[in-house]
Amino acid sequence: MRDSSFSADQAGLAQGLAALLDRPKGDVAAALAALPESLPAAGQGEIQTLTQLAPLVLGGARHLGAETAFAHMDPPTPWIAWVAALWNASVNQNLLHPDVAPVARDLEAQVVAWLAPWFGMDGGHLTPGSTIANFTALWAARELAAVDTVIASDTVHLSAAKAAHLLGLKYISVPTDRRGGVDAAELPGDLSRTALVLTAGTTSAGVIDDLGLIGRAAWTHVDAAWAGPLRLSPRYAGLLDGIEKADSVAVSPHKWFFQPKESGLILFRDSAAAHQAVSFNGAYLAVPNVGVLGSHGAAAVPLLATLLAWGHDGVAKRLDQTMALADDLAARLAADPRVELWRQPETAVILWRPMNGQSVDALRQQFPAGMSSATTVDGHLWVRHVAANPNADIEVIWTAIDAALG
Amino acid sequence: MRDSSFSADQAGLAQGLAALLDRPKGDVAAALAALPESLPAAGQGEIQTLTQLAPLVLGGARHLGAETAFAHMDPPTPWIAWVAALWNASVNQNLLHPDVAPVARDLEAQVVAWLAPWFGMDGGHLTPGSTIANFTALWAARELAAVDTVIASDTVHLSAAKAAHLLGLKYISVPTDRRGGVDAAELPGDLSRTALVLTAGTTSAGVIDDLGLIGRAAWTHVDAAWAGPLRLSPRYAGLLDGIEKADSVAVSPHKWFFQPKESGLILFRDSAAAHQAVSFNGAYLAVPNVGVLGSHGAAAVPLLATLLAWGHDGVAKRLDQTMALADDLAARLAADPRVELWRQPETAVILWRPMNGQSVDALRQQFPAGMSSATTVDGHLWVRHVAANPNADIEVIWTAIDAALG
Repeated sequence: MRDSSFSADQAGLAQGLAALLDRPKGDVAAALAALPESLPAAGQGEIQTLTQLAPLVLGGARHLGAETAFAHMDPPTPWIAWVAALWNASVNQNLLHPDVAPVARDLEAQVVAWLAPWFGMDGGHLTPGSTIANFTALWAARELAAVDTVIASDTVHLSAAKAAHLLGLKYISVPTDRRGGVDAAELPGDLSRTALVLTAGTTSAGVIDDLGLIGRAAWTHVDAAWAGPLRLSPRYAGLLDGIEKADSVAVSPHKWFFQPKESGLILFRDSAAAHQAVSFNGAYLAVPNVGVLGSHGAAAVPLLATLLAWGHDGVAKRLDQTMALADDLAARLAADPRVELWRQPETAVILWRPMNGQSVDALRQQFPAGMSSATTVDGHLWVRHVAANPNADIEVIWTAIDAALG
Repeated sequence: MRDSSFSADQAGLAQGLAALLDRPKGDVAAALAALPESLPAAGQGEIQTLTQLAPLVLGGARHLGAETAFAHMDPPTPWIAWVAALWNASVNQNLLHPDVAPVARDLEAQVVAWLAPWFGMDGGHLTPGSTIANFTALWAARELAAVDTVIASDTVHLSAAKAAHLLGLKYISVPTDRRGGVDAAELPGDLSRTALVLTAGTTSAGVIDDLGLIGRAAWTHVDAAWAGPLRLSPRYAGLLDGIEKADSVAVSPHKWFFQPKESGLILFRDSAAAHQAVSFNGAYLAVPNVGVLGSHGAAAVPLLATLLAWGHDGVAKRLDQTMALADDLAARLAADPRVELWRQPETAVILWRPMNGQSVDALRQQFPAGMSSATTVDGHLWVRHVAANPNADIEVIWTAIDAALG
């Protein structure tokens, strides 16, 4: 007798879809408290479970596509990616085995082939985020370039130091210059045993390091987790000029390619050599296990679907739209005597603080949830916005800021 | 103007659901060849994209719930997990920030609290698979127990050696005994600087190492990626007795908890100390970044939904069902003079080979795709089956084996 839990249940799937459209609200704290403390002995069935969880998973989630969602590098996702994620879950492909993912492996190769050339890279693979992508790059650097040291600026993502720590590499943090990028004058002269990590879009401030430094070290990795997709915008591609000379590039599709978590991309200039260096094999495997993960899913499918639906033009349009939103807000802040704008945003991350002695924390408490974050730069706490949401409404956001500034 | 790509499109979602139910077949090779070689300039829209991709993603996928699906540790997934994956993709929660995942972080804590006690552990976190779970365990062992060596049997998953290599730890492989588990007599006497990795369900043969060895080393990690869920079956829980004394346990929900990829679980006996040891922080983070990943999604939600829908009884029922399928096939193979059964399966992995000189490869070519895999054990190539699919039909599978054996 077939187990109906594993067959598509039309009524149940319809209920799941209806909940997604409704985003049912409820008392989140009460609903969380109502969950059993230990694994319940008896199942309550799928329908009751969906009813119970919808107000938590959907109703309780931050609405990343709301008009005031402007706080983090976590964009809303397009509905075609939701469908692709649904499909992926239903077929449960394991890209480790061609036998279990006969087509999905080809689709990953295809989407990598579409994206790698924009960065001057010749291949790579998907990872569950840019922390693993950065880690994979430094793993390859350790194997291929015999590096014993990782150097990056003090504004690099924490994954650089984490990867060095994990890989047993010495880690050196160098100061940034006034622009907020790595200070070239602070780099050691001898980088022959060093992997230099440059950032294209720092997490705190969206700054792009001087990519002219690429090539000075035994290995240069560009963490373009945030700003990488701008390479596809004819208007902003020039910001990343020089990236094509890097040895490796990390990009987070779950950031500015609008993908669901967990979607990362590690690209190599010589991917054959890099993949050889980061491969293990097992008796039960038909092909080498490339990269950090063993069993892994098809994060490439929502990405490929999105790129096919939007095309290069559609990606560029949405990037330009978010960049324009950032410019709009920055211009208002720059013109307002009540605030100090840190700098004109390079890659849609906007930092500012009040000039009238108001605290950043007190200000932010007056904003709608999800409108701002906070970060420390140059020894000061700043209000931080990130333009990852094409549906943000700067008029509404400005109204909230204006009211809070009083 | 709102960007409609980010809003739920009822017709589009309905099309995606219809395709999931239909699993449309097509000429996969032709459909792959029809994909553009480079990123197309113009988008073709969501509807056309879904139409183009459905025969690839759905029609081209291996059907893991088919009556002859019996080859790999990749089970079919329950439809409630599909819905949860759809919800996750639509809200794009990032569990790194409480601000972006205000509820999903609680749901992960809840599902960990449900599962950890079954293994005698007091907490842990989700990872994208057991390779990262094993890696995280050995990272914690390096930090907390000052281990400089990892020891495991020659049947351990390749992720143990990979993790040791990445973490700069010496790796020692010890032989297995006749039962196929780690040979205790081959272990060094001094394990005071060693992390011992024991396996509960080897990848090739499903063997459980002697868990009585737990406690001999500075740190003992049990890789229960495959067999861990059996701890929830009253009938089979005893197979894992002793696991509660381990320092850490890895389980792969995307294996025998029937979850979509990528779903792993790392559990610690002292999770506060372990999480402290594997944490980094960043200026923009409200809470420490625990574990290997930075941004990460809510793989806990499909797992929690499945456990709530099925309950402990429902999980145990499905585990017992797959164990019974393995026993059924093993009994037929054991009784047939044409074949040699390697051993009575411990955890639903069945190895056998023909006695009449037929090659394993030639035999397997006569089987339906996805019915068998192959593995080398004791110097011989064996046909391998894995009972991960509750809907497998042993009559049909046996008919195929019987016909091939002639």
